[in-house]
Amino acid sequence: MSQSPGDLLEKLRAETPLVQCITNHVAMSITANALLAAGASPAMVADAEEAGEFAEIAGALTVNIGTPSRPLLEGAHAAIDGAHSAGRPWVFDPVACQATAFRRRASNDLMALKPAIVRANALEILALAGETNRGQGVDGRDGVDVAEMAARRLARDTRAVIAVTAREDYVTDGTRAMRIGGGSHWMSLNSAMGCALTGLCGAFAAVADDPFDAAVGALALFSVAGARTHDGAGGPGSFGWRFMDTLHGVMPAVLDYEAEIADAETIAA
Amino acid sequence: MSQSPGDLLEKLRAETPLVQCITNHVAMSITANALLAAGASPAMVADAEEAGEFAEIAGALTVNIGTPSRPLLEGAHAAIDGAHSAGRPWVFDPVACQATAFRRRASNDLMALKPAIVRANALEILALAGETNRGQGVDGRDGVDVAEMAARRLARDTRAVIAVTAREDYVTDGTRAMRIGGGSHWMSLNSAMGCALTGLCGAFAAVADDPFDAAVGALALFSVAGARTHDGAGGPGSFGWRFMDTLHGVMPAVLDYEAEIADAETIAA
Amino acid sequence: MSQSPGDLLEKLRAETPLVQCITNHVAMSITANALLAAGASPAMVADAEEAGEFAEIAGALTVNIGTPSRPLLEGAHAAIDGAHSAGRPWVFDPVACQATAFRRRASNDLMALKPAIVRANALEILALAGETNRGQGVDGRDGVDVAEMAARRLARDTRAVIAVTAREDYVTDGTRAMRIGGGSHWMSLNSAMGCALTGLCGAFAAVADDPFDAAVGALALFSVAGARTHDGAGGPGSFGWRFMDTLHGVMPAVLDYEAEIADAETIAA
Repeated sequence: MSQSPGDLLEKLRAETPLVQCITNHVAMSITANALLAAGASPAMVADAEEAGEFAEIAGALTVNIGTPSRPLLEGAHAAIDGAHSAGRPWVFDPVACQATAFRRRASNDLMALKPAIVRANALEILALAGETNRGQGVDGRDGVDVAEMAARRLARDTRAVIAVTAREDYVTDGTRAMRIGGGSHWMSLNSAMGCALTGLCGAFAAVADDPFDAAVGALALFSVAGARTHDGAGGPGSFGWRFMDTLHGVMPAVLDYEAEIADAETIAA
Repeated sequence: MSQSPGDLLEKLRAETPLVQCITNHVAMSITANALLAAGASPAMVADAEEAGEFAEIAGALTVNIGTPSRPLLEGAHAAIDGAHSAGRPWVFDPVACQATAFRRRASNDLMALKPAIVRANALEILALAGETNRGQGVDGRDGVDVAEMAARRLARDTRAVIAVTAREDYVTDGTRAMRIGGGSHWMSLNSAMGCALTGLCGAFAAVADDPFDAAVGALALFSVAGARTHDGAGGPGSFGWRFMDTLHGVMPAVLDYEAEIADAETIAA
Repeated sequence: MSQSPGDLLEKLRAETPLVQCITNHVAMSITANALLAAGASPAMVADAEEAGEFAEIAGALTVNIGTPSRPLLEGAHAAIDGAHSAGRPWVFDPVACQATAFRRRASNDLMALKPAIVRANALEILALAGETNRGQGVDGRDGVDVAEMAARRLARDTRAVIAVTAREDYVTDGTRAMRIGGGSHWMSLNSAMGCALTGLCGAFAAVADDPFDAAVGALALFSVAGARTHDGAGGPGSFGWRFMDTLHGVMPAVLDYEAEIADAETIAA
């Protein structure tokens, strides 16, 4: 039986899962703070000297290639090995994977290592699915509909849950699919908000039975917190700190009540 | 014909230029957020594996040596090559270039690669101009007047626009020179504000015909936003987030109206 | 004669000591901002190419292994050599030193280099003292009492001042011992607050005659600022920026008046 976003948030706050984040230099602080605010315990352990060892004690791992380098990728591979050994899930954030040859290679290598969840924008999903030609003119601000077919196919091919975020989010495991509304346009003007959400997917994955529920739960929490924060905010700066207060204050029952989750219409593959 | 700060801000918001930032670890988040708030699209792409390739698609490049390392400098050199190939401008921020032999060498090497704009404080400009002996006792809090002669000479020698920032800013291309007032003393108590301003110089340079106008525009926007934010702020923390709201809210026409820009008196070379 | 927290804060603001911080990627920005707010001048100079040279001009050095790597440790060793040459104190923050073999080795190597102050949580102090078995179930949120004996012994063995922070803090040089109350539970939900406090220990050490007074002063300032900020905060986000305003606004006389410092009962060694 599936676990609702509120079920998972309650579990997360009770268990305070340790989430190992290998992330980019812009996202470090906001990711750690979002995890703390939500109720998890972040650990930015990324160096190959220790990342694999640490992954065996963490509840989940997240890997984000926003500022990639060889040391970061070596650390990511070591950590993924550790997570696999320990039977823990890992979440992939293929930031701008379409932009350079280095990122394309890194993303392809990482996708082969069986992430439980991929959290990305529409353009990145199109690139991962090999449909870069269709991606012209698409960016993080477009709707996810252009990437829905690609996401579903990618999910079937890789057995990862694909979470495409935009004004409206889309989550699929290749069979099931959900749309999640809410949020605020101020989110796209706070750098690394998507990266922080990837961290939260890790926290939910650490406590969930099913990565599909984890992705839906994390996205629902972000969207509810974003929508709640929107009205009090006068710009990206005031949104930023209010969002952390809101994230901390969302109660599990309220999350389930306010989450805008709908089954996405089935599309024949 | 020259483009006013408001003209450039309007263009920036219409075109959302992609600005590649190679910057220090303290400045990553505030630089990305300031660029987003102003209306540009930041990309922190710094590794030599991809920095050159990415520079060919970016509208402008900024290089900041606040936390220098060999990998960062290799990435910077690759990116500058890419920017030159693509005919795009790059902006240099020689943070504390007078402080160590490593920074002196790195700065000299980078100055030889024809930055369009150098954004720095008075002490850094004196050091770049080879007048370190005159710099004793000067720091970022002093007025720019001690560095004006050096800035003008440096601009003539290197053909870069030199933007010296302090309580009152000074911009020169060796022939023309402007002073820009405004700002807030809380700016110097928020770390990496100057680095964020360098990012904004990149955004303005991406849309301007003339780097001199770009530097004046970026400095004017920062100064107007700083002055507007000052009154509501009770300290450096409240200034920080309010500044982002203000930066996002400044309208082009208001920028031209409120900017405190004056021709600097001509000094015989 | 000992210097009170207020004495040291007054001296710090008069002298604006240059504090070299080698710290982790999460803590960079908050550490720099806390130092600026308190009245010091932060410099994030960490690369081995320049860290040693710079340490000779800084008033104090801090080393934090929150995101360790070989380059960071090489920079730390170079900087410590420089600080020793210049006769300046250095402060060690052994973040999660119990978590991996890499951190245990790095911490042991650094502890041998005579830090003036070690700022850590109870679990880290137990690990440094070789009492990891007693640390099961201890984390940063526990009281410091479990680590007091270990701290006292570690201080005697290493001649470092040991500052253990938790809900109530404990500072000892092996002979003297103080407890410091105050603070706010929101502090533990802002990432890298402890790391920022380590930076502040460096700033106080730069102006103090005795590292014991420096540690007491820095912890007292953080606790007073935390307690003062607590009431106005509605969550971790609003606490974060208000704390910076408060830190900047605490006056030396008020610090001595509001600080909750008590002699810790002597325990036979």
